[in-house]
Order: sequence, then C-alpha cells, then structure tokens
Amino acid sequence: MHNDLLPSLGATINHTIKLRKHIVSPYDPRYRLWEKFLIVLVLYSAWICPFEFAFRRYLPSTIFLVDNIINSFFAIDIVLTFFVAFVDHKSYLLVDEPKRIAVRYLSTWFIFDACSTFPFQTISFFFNGHSKSLGFKLLSVLRLWRLHHVNSLFARLEKDIRFNYFWTRCTKLFSVTLFAVHCSGCFNYMIADRYPDPERTWIGAVIPNFMEHNLWVRYVTAIYWSITTLTTTGYGDLHAENTREMVFGICYMLFNLGLTSYLIGNMTNLVVHGTSHTKNFRDTIQAASEFASRNKLPKHMEEQMLSHICLRFKTEGLKQQETLDGLPKAIRSSIAEYLFFPIVQKVYLFQGFSFNLIFQLVTEMQAEYYPPKEDVILQNEAPAYLYIIHTSTLTIDNCCTIKIFRFMEG
Amino acid sequence: MHNDLLPSLGATINHTIKLRKHIVSPYDPRYRLWEKFLIVLVLYSAWICPFEFAFRRYLPSTIFLVDNIINSFFAIDIVLTFFVAFVDHKSYLLVDEPKRIAVRYLSTWFIFDACSTFPFQTISFFFNGHSKSLGFKLLSVLRLWRLHHVNSLFARLEKDIRFNYFWTRCTKLFSVTLFAVHCSGCFNYMIADRYPDPERTWIGAVIPNFMEHNLWVRYVTAIYWSITTLTTTGYGDLHAENTREMVFGICYMLFNLGLTSYLIGNMTNLVVHGTSHTKNFRDTIQAASEFASRNKLPKHMEEQMLSHICLRFKTEGLKQQETLDGLPKAIRSSIAEYLFFPIVQKVYLFQGFSFNLIFQLVTEMQAEYYPPKEDVILQNEAPAYLYIIHTSTLTIDNCCTIKIFRFMEG
Amino acid sequence: MHNDLLPSLGATINHTIKLRKHIVSPYDPRYRLWEKFLIVLVLYSAWICPFEFAFRRYLPSTIFLVDNIINSFFAIDIVLTFFVAFVDHKSYLLVDEPKRIAVRYLSTWFIFDACSTFPFQTISFFFNGHSKSLGFKLLSVLRLWRLHHVNSLFARLEKDIRFNYFWTRCTKLFSVTLFAVHCSGCFNYMIADRYPDPERTWIGAVIPNFMEHNLWVRYVTAIYWSITTLTTTGYGDLHAENTREMVFGICYMLFNLGLTSYLIGNMTNLVVHGTSHTKNFRDTIQAASEFASRNKLPKHMEEQMLSHICLRFKTEGLKQQETLDGLPKAIRSSIAEYLFFPIVQKVYLFQGFSFNLIFQLVTEMQAEYYPPKEDVILQNEAPAYLYIIHTSTLTIDNCCTIKIFRFMEG
Amino acid sequence: MHNDLLPSLGATINHTIKLRKHIVSPYDPRYRLWEKFLIVLVLYSAWICPFEFAFRRYLPSTIFLVDNIINSFFAIDIVLTFFVAFVDHKSYLLVDEPKRIAVRYLSTWFIFDACSTFPFQTISFFFNGHSKSLGFKLLSVLRLWRLHHVNSLFARLEKDIRFNYFWTRCTKLFSVTLFAVHCSGCFNYMIADRYPDPERTWIGAVIPNFMEHNLWVRYVTAIYWSITTLTTTGYGDLHAENTREMVFGICYMLFNLGLTSYLIGNMTNLVVHGTSHTKNFRDTIQAASEFASRNKLPKHMEEQMLSHICLRFKTEGLKQQETLDGLPKAIRSSIAEYLFFPIVQKVYLFQGFSFNLIFQLVTEMQAEYYPPKEDVILQNEAPAYLYIIHTSTLTIDNCCTIKIFRFMEG
Repeated sequence: MHNDLLPSLGATINHTIKLRKHIVSPYDPRYRLWEKFLIVLVLYSAWICPFEFAFRRYLPSTIFLVDNIINSFFAIDIVLTFFVAFVDHKSYLLVDEPKRIAVRYLSTWFIFDACSTFPFQTISFFFNGHSKSLGFKLLSVLRLWRLHHVNSLFARLEKDIRFNYFWTRCTKLFSVTLFAVHCSGCFNYMIADRYPDPERTWIGAVIPNFMEHNLWVRYVTAIYWSITTLTTTGYGDLHAENTREMVFGICYMLFNLGLTSYLIGNMTNLVVHGTSHTKNFRDTIQAASEFASRNKLPKHMEEQMLSHICLRFKTEGLKQQETLDGLPKAIRSSIAEYLFFPIVQKVYLFQGFSFNLIFQLVTEMQAEYYPPKEDVILQNEAPAYLYIIHTSTLTIDNCCTIKIFRFMEG
Repeated sequence: MHNDLLPSLGATINHTIKLRKHIVSPYDPRYRLWEKFLIVLVLYSAWICPFEFAFRRYLPSTIFLVDNIINSFFAIDIVLTFFVAFVDHKSYLLVDEPKRIAVRYLSTWFIFDACSTFPFQTISFFFNGHSKSLGFKLLSVLRLWRLHHVNSLFARLEKDIRFNYFWTRCTKLFSVTLFAVHCSGCFNYMIADRYPDPERTWIGAVIPNFMEHNLWVRYVTAIYWSITTLTTTGYGDLHAENTREMVFGICYMLFNLGLTSYLIGNMTNLVVHGTSHTKNFRDTIQAASEFASRNKLPKHMEEQMLSHICLRFKTEGLKQQETLDGLPKAIRSSIAEYLFFPIVQKVYLFQGFSFNLIFQLVTEMQAEYYPPKEDVILQNEAPAYLYIIHTSTLTIDNCCTIKIFRFMEG
Repeated sequence: MHNDLLPSLGATINHTIKLRKHIVSPYDPRYRLWEKFLIVLVLYSAWICPFEFAFRRYLPSTIFLVDNIINSFFAIDIVLTFFVAFVDHKSYLLVDEPKRIAVRYLSTWFIFDACSTFPFQTISFFFNGHSKSLGFKLLSVLRLWRLHHVNSLFARLEKDIRFNYFWTRCTKLFSVTLFAVHCSGCFNYMIADRYPDPERTWIGAVIPNFMEHNLWVRYVTAIYWSITTLTTTGYGDLHAENTREMVFGICYMLFNLGLTSYLIGNMTNLVVHGTSHTKNFRDTIQAASEFASRNKLPKHMEEQMLSHICLRFKTEGLKQQETLDGLPKAIRSSIAEYLFFPIVQKVYLFQGFSFNLIFQLVTEMQAEYYPPKEDVILQNEAPAYLYIIHTSTLTIDNCCTIKIFRFMEG
Repeated sequence: MHNDLLPSLGATINHTIKLRKHIVSPYDPRYRLWEKFLIVLVLYSAWICPFEFAFRRYLPSTIFLVDNIINSFFAIDIVLTFFVAFVDHKSYLLVDEPKRIAVRYLSTWFIFDACSTFPFQTISFFFNGHSKSLGFKLLSVLRLWRLHHVNSLFARLEKDIRFNYFWTRCTKLFSVTLFAVHCSGCFNYMIADRYPDPERTWIGAVIPNFMEHNLWVRYVTAIYWSITTLTTTGYGDLHAENTREMVFGICYMLFNLGLTSYLIGNMTNLVVHGTSHTKNFRDTIQAASEFASRNKLPKHMEEQMLSHICLRFKTEGLKQQETLDGLPKAIRSSIAEYLFFPIVQKVYLFQGFSFNLIFQLVTEMQAEYYPPKEDVILQNEAPAYLYIIHTSTLTIDNCCTIKIFRFMEG
C-alpha cells in the first residue's frame, strides 16, 4: 500500500512506487495516455450516438464497423480496469490487491460499463437481418454512459491549478451546451422523420421533400432549430407543426430554462471571482484616498500611503501572511529558517550567537516590504520591534526596495 | 406543555410525549402520513383547478364527483386541525389545550380553508341546474389557497439538512414555473374559447375549428404557447390576434420578466454556494504555490505545504474549529472530554495523575492532523506546546496519518 | 439651527422644533402630505407625457386643461420651496434662513423645475393657434424632469427599515420597466403615425387603416410590441418595416440588453441577500452534524449541539454581540446597566455591595442563552467564569430556557 | 533608472525625471496626447475594417486614401515606440536604454504591429490592378489587432479611482457588444452578397434586389438582424435562408450565449458592489433596532444607538480604522503625529511634558466620533481610557459633534 495525497494538484510527484506484478498504477504515464485516448473515443461516441439515432437509415454501413472497433477499445478498458490499482477514499492509499480491485469495480460501475459496451446492434443484425428496430436503437443510447469519463476529467481539471479556472469552467459549460444542442437537434429530426405526414413537420413545412436533401443540409437545419430554441432567439421560421413536436418542444424549453440559468449563474460566479482582486485594490486605494482628503493629510503623506498599498498589492497579494498562518508550526518554522537564517547569520549584531538562539529568533521573524524613501522607524518612536534591513530581495530590484525583517521583542 | 426545539432539523428525536386525550401531536407519524396524503391531493387540485376553469364544458361530469371526494378530505382536515396540538412561536412549546388550538385556528387560516373547501359548484348545480356561470368558476379558484400546504412543505424541506439544498430549491422553482405555465396556458385558452370570432384568436388563426379537436391537442397547444412565451423563445407561430389576448400577453410577459430574473437569481445563488468549496481549495493551493515559487522554496518544502493543505481540506473541511468555537463552554468541554480523555489517560506521562487534573488538561487540548513524514517539531525549536502523538485515528487509516493533540503550556 | 441625524430611518422622532416665521420644516406632516400628493401628480405626468407625444392629435382638448391645472400645482411647489428649510449636507443641520434657502434652490434645481413647469404648449397655442409643432412637443418632454421626485422617494424608502428591502426594490425596478415600455411603445407608434406610407409601418402591415381604429386598440398594440421586444420574446407578428423603425428598434434593443441585465443583477442581489440566513443556518447545522458523525459523538451530545445552534438562530440571530461591539463604550455600559443591574442587585452573593462595584461588574457581563437540560458547568471543570442563572427571560417562556449572565474573573 | 510605482492610480505625481536624450517618457503629457489621438484612429479602424470587408465594392475609392493616411500614423507609432522608455515588470523602474527598449519591443508586439500596419491592399492594387481578392481582404482584418490599444486603455481606467467603476465597466461592455453587433452584421451581409442566388438569402427574401438599395438601408438592415439575434429577440422577419447562413447563425448564437451571460454576470457583480453600502447600513440599523425591541430598551436608548450608527456611516464609512491598520507602523505613527500632536500639545494636562513623551502618547491615540448629547463616560464607570474631548473637527460643524481622542492606559 502506498500513499498518494495529491492526485488532483497537478504537481509532478514522483510515483516510482512498486506495485504487485501485473497491477498498473493509475498514475503510470502510459495509463494516463490510454485514458486520454479513451476521452477522444468518448467524444466521438457522444457525437455519433444521437446522430445515428436520428439518421441511421441514411448512413453508410461502414459506420457500424467503426462503432464496433470503438466498442472493442472500451471492452479492453473494462478488462484493464481489473488490473489498475485504485485510491481508497477512506485511507487515501493505493490498493493493489486484485481481489479488492475486482470487488470494488464489480459492485460499482462494471454493470454500466458492460451494458454500454455490449454490441446490441451487431447481435440484432445477426438475429434479425437488420438493426433498425427502435428497441435496439434505445439500447445504443446506453453508450452515452461513457460520458462519465469526461465528467471526471473536468472534475480533475477544475482542481488542478495549472489550468485557469475560468477557461476550464467555460469549456465545460460550452461542451454541455453543444451536447444538449446536438442531442435535441437529432431527436427533433427523428420525430419529423418518423411522422406519417412529412409536410406537417417542422422541417417539412419549410423544406418540402426534405428527405431527399443531403445529410449536411438536414443536420445543419436540425442544429439551427436546436440552437435557435436554446438561446431563446426563436426566429419562428422553423417551429413545431404537430402535437408530438410540441410536446418535445415543451420539454426542451423547460430544460433550456434550467440550462441558461445555470450558464448565467456560473458566468456570474466566475466574473465575481475574476474581478475581486481589482475591486479590492480599488476599495483599498479609495478608502486610503478618502481618509487622506477627509483628514487633510499633506500630499507627501498621501503618496506614501498609496505607494505602500500599491507595493503590497503588487508584491505579495493579500494572501502571504494568511497562507503561512494556516500551516502548522513545524512547517512555518522550517520555512522561516530557510528564508531568514542565512540573512540573520550575517548580521553583525548576532555574530557569535549559538545556532539554537538564532533559530529561535528566526521562527518569530516577519517580512515587511517598504517602497524606497519610506520611513521605517520615526525618530523618538517607542522601539517595539527590532528591524533588520535587507535590501537585496529576490523578487525586487536591488537598489529600490528595502525588505525588513522585524521580530517582536521578548 | 412540552418542549420541541428542533422541528425543522429532520433529526429523529424521540417525541413520546403524553398529550391530552383526543389531541394529536403534529409529530405523530400517522398525522405526518395524512399530511403527505393531503399534499398529493393539493397537487391534483392545483392542476385540475385552472384546467377546469378553461375546459369545463368539455369535461365529463365524473370529474365533479372526484372534486367532491377531494373536497371532503379537506373538510376532514379542517375538523382534524381542531384536535392537533401546535408549537407556540414565542415559547417553542407544544400547546394541547383545545380552547387555545381553536382560538388560534379560527383567528388565522380557518376562514380561508373553509372557503376553499365549500362546494360552491355543487350548490350552484342544485340551484341553477348547471354550474357554468363565471361567478362560480371564479369561486372555484379559491381552491388554489390549498397551495400554502406545498409552500410550507418546501419551507420545511429547505431547512432540513437531510435533503440537498440545491435540488430542493430547484424542485421548488421548477414547480412554480410549471404551475405558472399551466395557469397561463389554460387562461389564454379560455380567452380564445370565449371570444366571439374564433378565427381571430391566437389558436383559431393557426388551427381553424380548434373547438372540434380533442382536448389533448388543445391543451398541448395552450401549454406550448405558454412555455414559448415564458422562456422568451417566442417563435411567433402562435401569437395574440385581438386586444384581449394582447392585454393578457402584456401581463404575462411582465410577470415572466420577474419570474425568469428570480430563477436566474436563485440559480446564481446556488452555483456560488456550490462552487465555493472548490474555489477556496484552489485559492489556498494557488496562494501556497505562489508563495513557494516567489520565495524559491525547495521542492520538498512546497510539497509539504501542499500536502498539508490537501489533508486539511479532505479531512476536516474548514469548519471544525469554527463549529466548536460557536458552542458554549460546557458543551465544548464535554466534547473534549469524550474525544481526548481515553487517549490522555493512557499516556505514560500522565499515569497517576488525578481525574480532575487530566480533565482540566483535556478541555484545553486541540486536535491537529499531519500527513505522514511531516515534521511535527523541528530540532532546536522553542517548545511552546506539548504534543501527544496518536496515530490510530477514527477516520484515517492506522499507519499513514498522525493525529496530534496539542495543548498550551500554562 | 437644529440638529437632525435620522432623516431616513423612519423612526418617529419628535420634530417640535421652532423655526422662523413663514418657514416650513421638511418634516412637517402637512408638507409631507403635500409631497405625497405631488408624487401622484408626477406619476400622472410621467404617463401622460409620452402618451400626448404620440397620440396628441387624437386626444380631446380637455386634456390640456388638466395639464394646465397640474402645471399650476407644480408652480405652487416651486414657490413653496423658497419657504421650506433644508438639511445642510456638511453639518446635518436644518437651515431656515430665507436667503440661504433661496441661494441653494436657485443655484441647483430651480432652472429645471421652472422649465418643466413653464406652459410652452399654451403659449404656442395662443401665438400659433395650434400646439402640434414638433418643437413644442419636445419641450413638453421636459416635464419628465419631475420624475426626480419619484427617484428621491425611492432612495428614501430603500434606507427606511420599516419597508421591506426586497419589495421596495422590486417596485422600483417594476416602475422603471413599465415606464420604459410605455415610452418606447408611444415613441414607436409616433414613428408609424408620421411615416408617409402607412402600409409600410410596423402597425400598418398588420392592422391596415390603423389610424381609424380607436385609441385603446392602438395603444394596446404599441405596448404589446414594446413589451414583446423588452422581454426579448419577439413573436415577430409586429416588426420593423422601414429603416426608421429599424434604427429605433436597434436603440431600444441595446437599451433593453442593459435593462434586463440590470433587472437580473438586482434580483440576484436580492435573492442572495434573502436566502443568506437560511444558508448560514444550514451550513452551521451541517458542519455540527458532520463534526458529530466524523468523531462518532454519542447521540445525546449531537442533539445538545444541534439544539444549542437552533436556539441561537431563533433567539438572537447572529448579530446581537456584533451590534453591541460596534457601539462606543458609554452606550454599551448604559445598555448593560439597564439590562443586568436589576438582576444582579437581587443576587444573594452581591447583597450589601456598593452601587459602584455592582455597576463595574455589570458592564463586563455577557448574556448567554441555554436550552433547558443543557449543562452550564461540568463537574471538575476549571472555573473561568462566574455564572448567574436567570430563568425568567423577557422573550422566552418562564420554565423552559435558562438565561445566564457570565462575567470574566478579574 | 527612475522609480514609478503608481502608474495606474491617476494621482498627479511629479514626473520631472531626466531621461537620456531622444528617449521619451511614457508619462510625458505630449506622448499621452499622442496615445489618445491613436485611440480615436483605432476606433475608426475597428469600425471601418468589418465595414470594408462587407461593402468594399460599393465604397468610393477615397476611402483607401483615408486608410493609408491612418496606416501611416500607426507606422509612425511603431517607429516612435523604439524611443519610448518602458516600466520593467520586475523592478517597476523606467528603462531608457535604447537597446533594451528595442529588444523588448521586437521580441513582443512588433511583429503584430507591423503586420497590422503593412499596406497589403495598396500593394495588391499595384500588382493586380484591383484589391478585391479574398486573400487580401482577410489580411486587412489584421488591422483589428490595433484593438489591444483600447483594451489596455480600459485596463488602466478600471484601476484609476478618478473614474467611476460602474460606468467604466459598463462602457467597456457596451463597446464590446456594439463591436460584436457591427462585425456579425457586416459578415452576415457579406455571406448574402456573395451567395449565387440573391433571392435565397436572409436579406433578399425580404428586400428583393437588395443590392440596388443604398448603403444605409443595407447596413441598417444588417445591424438590425445582428442585434435582433444578439438580444435573443429574434422577430423572425429576417432569418437564415440557406445552409451557409445557418452555419454562421449557429456560431453567432453560441457566441451570443456566452456574451449575454458575461454581460449579466458583470452587471450582477456591479449591482452587488453598488448596493453593498446601503445593505450594510440597513442590516446594522435593523440589528440594532431588533436588539432594542427584543430587550425592551427605553426609547431614548434606542435613539442613541441609532443616531450613533447613522453618524458612523455618514462620517467615516466602515473603512477608516481598517485603512490605518493595513499600513506599516512608521506611516501610522507619522499620520497620528500629524493629526493629534497639535491637539495634545494644547491640553492643559500635558503642559511641560517632553516632546518625546507626547509623541509616544500620540501614536497610541484613536479618534472616536460622538453625536451631540451622547454620554462619553458614565458616572461610576471604571476608567479604562483617557478621553481628550475636542469639539472643533474639520469635517463636522463646530457646535454639534464632539470628537474624542482616547488612548489606552499603560
């Protein structure tokens, strides 16, 4: 059993852990590659599945061959899953016992994976000589189960700080929207295609003899109707003509109401998150500026305040101290030692002090940044802190900013 | 009088309290069942009431029988309410005095309940020989008063943590939307049905002789118009043809503007709430990661920081300490005693100490979680806390995480 | 000069202040009544002004008489304003010097008020014999300036805690929406009415000879178009037919985009505000409940925690302590004295203590609420506080809740 | 090298810094003017570029002359950029070494600027004798790169507290919306213009022989379609007639869904930000008022609380103390000295004290505001602070408010 606490961080942790023979780690680069390959197949499946559902009878038979090849890859994945270690949700440990892997898989997702991979169409073809009955069509919809691969990919990406949260989230919402548009477009076409009177359908009323047009025209028209409805544009050039289509339209529009609200809600959330830094900066500057003008502070004092606030926002953000405070004392101490020890050791005042004493001092130190020409201590001020002035910082140029390490007396 | 402070928590509190004879507790499981049964009847009433309003003349007369049976159940509920104890809003106590129950009911909701149950239609039928006059139709709308049962059900569910807030809230908003669509669809149909010139109505312009079609077609068309307008899709295949319909359309669209804003506002609220955990996690990780790279911390230190933050988010959430701090001291002490006493008692250092002294120590202890291989105390660090290392935690596996109880000196 | 710090609180403060002769206080009930009467006239003006703009030539001439009567009321208001004291924005004092009142009014709003009241139409009628020239029509739009009365009314209502924030804000937004719909409907009608070819207008294409229909039909159609566009329903039965209408439509739709975003933004803000209490309650309960189950606390301890949290949310809200902490020490002390002194005086332990000593104690006391049967102090616990148990609270029934006054030692 | 930490604050900092010969400072007022002039040219380019793309063949040839003149201005800007100092992002210093300026520009934006300025059209005209080939048209789209000037202008304005955040943000969003509408309108027209069968296009189906109408009619119709689609009004009078237009419509509607969500999200963010002050005020007043009524405080005590809260919101906002706390100790001390020293020096109690001692006292002082007639210290209260009462404040009138300086004992 091996420990792994950081699966979603994206940090390149060294996973050279020894597992049992024939058991693959889920962090193995080759397995990761296989997973990425499967995602591509899933995306193809998600697109082809509603498309076949609507346009089956107009498709060349080679498409079934492609379907079966893809199915076989997913069948391989099912077999493979019995040999992939998993992270236990209680202990956060990698489990590599074949029996526990099998029990877990069989008791959770195996049945769905198997159903979504079983070649119902091919079997129906062998038995009946054709594969167009509605029952088998519905069974092929089970393939959409595979989308859970995509869902878990996005859940992982959202927690991975290497990817921008805004764009990850937007891509997810965009994909969901596209999928909804594709599905409903195909489904609405199927309703028209199967309606006894082709002239009384949403497409037939506009394009008479629509079944004689090529696939591209019909597919684009279906998608155009779908997106016109989803975005609530509703030109009305294509609209429900019979009760069946109306019922589908009612369901789709209700779904859309939820989807668009969800999109707007997410976008609002992202916008609020994205502008919070600028807003904080503005609020702080505004408050300082109002304070200065209300108290009629002299110009140079106001500039000193504003330049300090600008420096703080530019160099540290607001989170440096909070980040440290949230950590346990041992980690904080080792960070402080790493950062401040070499500097304090060189200070003339502490020459000859024992290592232990300097170590104690260092753990209590805090860093403060000052813009140049700013007063650090005023004359006559009560000395509450001891300042060590260090001008050569790592992030800021040598001659312009003074970094000060202060620590509490006593 | 009996105390009940937790009506909305969903906790299975033991309500084996003795009430007066013939008085039922509102927490009695049989009464709860009766309430659930009434909810079903209310939902049927809410659907049938606008439907009858629009399509009365086309409905079979058996529907009146059903209406009267349902009415009688609500009449039983009115009588029953005089025998159900209630929770006083000032003292949070269960009141079981028949007189106070009656006074409260008669002075609040009795008159509405009675009006919504009184069989105006049947009486009008006996007197006039028919029940189609508009006056009695409007009186039957009083039945919608019963919806307050559903409203109070949702208010209760929202505070019940056994139910997911997101889905409870979505279900409520979805129900309200469906009800608005149903009502306005029926009302708009009624306007067309009563208009002198059927060809100049929103439905008659598209389906000539619409009154000869069956109910299903007409109902679906009405709902289709209603939802096309609510979602602001507005295909325009069905639209107002005369001034009456325009006036109704104006009112409905103004209402829709409010409803859709309300839906979007709620969804945004839920999305913000739902993603706040992931956002906090990302922000914390990002801040730690930036801190590490800005200060050029060595790799192992960064990993230590990140793995600590991950552990904290996974094991405790951010609320453990806050939860304890919000409680009064006595409860905090008894929790601390329950959690830490057995452990401290076994510690070699405290062997032979008196119960009282250990009790004092225990109330000052705090739990901290550390990932394995993390330093708890650095060599040479000033000893500010006393750590008791306890590896067998309840939630996390035995050999991988170290749980530490620290308490302040002095 | 007299002080008034609470103009917007709605508290019934005694304003029996003596002003100079002939000067009216803005808080005088009769002046307030006059202001309310003006609001009614403003609303009528706001409605009639765009309506006259569009339908002038079809209106009876009596409407001009009404206009002139209303104008005279606003003229009276202009004169009156010279005799109304005002609150100075720097000193928050009521100024009743006639000269300062006149200077302030003449230098701010006088010119707008005068222009919006000057009877341009009547004058044009006397000079030209008719009042239909576009120039004078545009001048009559100046009357919309009066809407600033409504705006300042809403600004006042929003800060008045006697009115519900949600409904005040919704009413404001609803009024703005209605006004936008009314204005643009009238303006769009005017474009059609003045277009050389009536058949090629948005209304003429649907209702040929629309000018011969009565006013009601034309007004409803205009409003119907306007609201169909504002809500983005856009049925398309009424749509721009010529370039002029297209240009107006482009401007109106751009404006709508802003208005609907603003409506949704406000609604979201209100929903977030309105549900925050329930959300906090749920989060706190959830955190406590998870804490209990994670640490496998016994059932009675969990119930104690939950009932304490419920009590806290029900009795105090979360703001009691915060409210007190925001006040200066003297006010806090006088509140503490008022609340706790009579109780402490009766306590046996403090019999014979000097008034001063008890007063000192009282200012350090804090109130805590406990549900019945909850432990206040555990046996063996270190005594950090002194508790005075007081069962007869003011808000909660005598025999069920225990109120405790604790104060720090030393 | 010269320091400049406040480029985005809008504060009028003295930039009389001496740079090398022939090097211009980016803060030079003449360079700022040149930048503003370029913004005007960029706005013209942004408008003309899609317009030429769609209507090239109907435009007079003088427009090419204008294009070339504008191009030459941008060419001058490219040359000029080699002589403008820049602010280094690591050291926040102004760099005026010609070599570093050139290296930075050549390695970042030079290639884009050059491509967007290169006169492809003129060259194609000289070589081919015409400039209408699609390839060169696409190259002219490169001119849109210039919009980055506008983008960085808005980024600067958003951080400049002299401009209202709400209106800056709204202007930005409005500009983006207008640009999207303009681009898609022009592009959609181009599709119709190049379609082989003009009758089967979105514009040709409504305006037969649309190519013979004047430019204004065609442009307005294109913009009308564009905005009808963007706002999701979708009247349907103009709609896609062929597959090409459908594909473009699908893309545009998907883009619109994102854009409108983004607009609503931003508006919500701004509304929440804008109403937070009123909301805080209401919440605080409400909490105080409820506290008073729950504890049955006498009327004068409630009024004292409310008037204190009103005063606090009016005079300081909530940020005064927070602003000070965020600053380092030296700045805080110098502000305290500036504000309080002259007052304390005049106090009788401190006559004859040394400068140093008063300086120490002053740095610990805090200001509190009290409405008139409010108690500052109650009789018998334990003296925890020393109050210096100072009635002549700077912002508030002499005789009505008492300002108190308190400082901690010891």
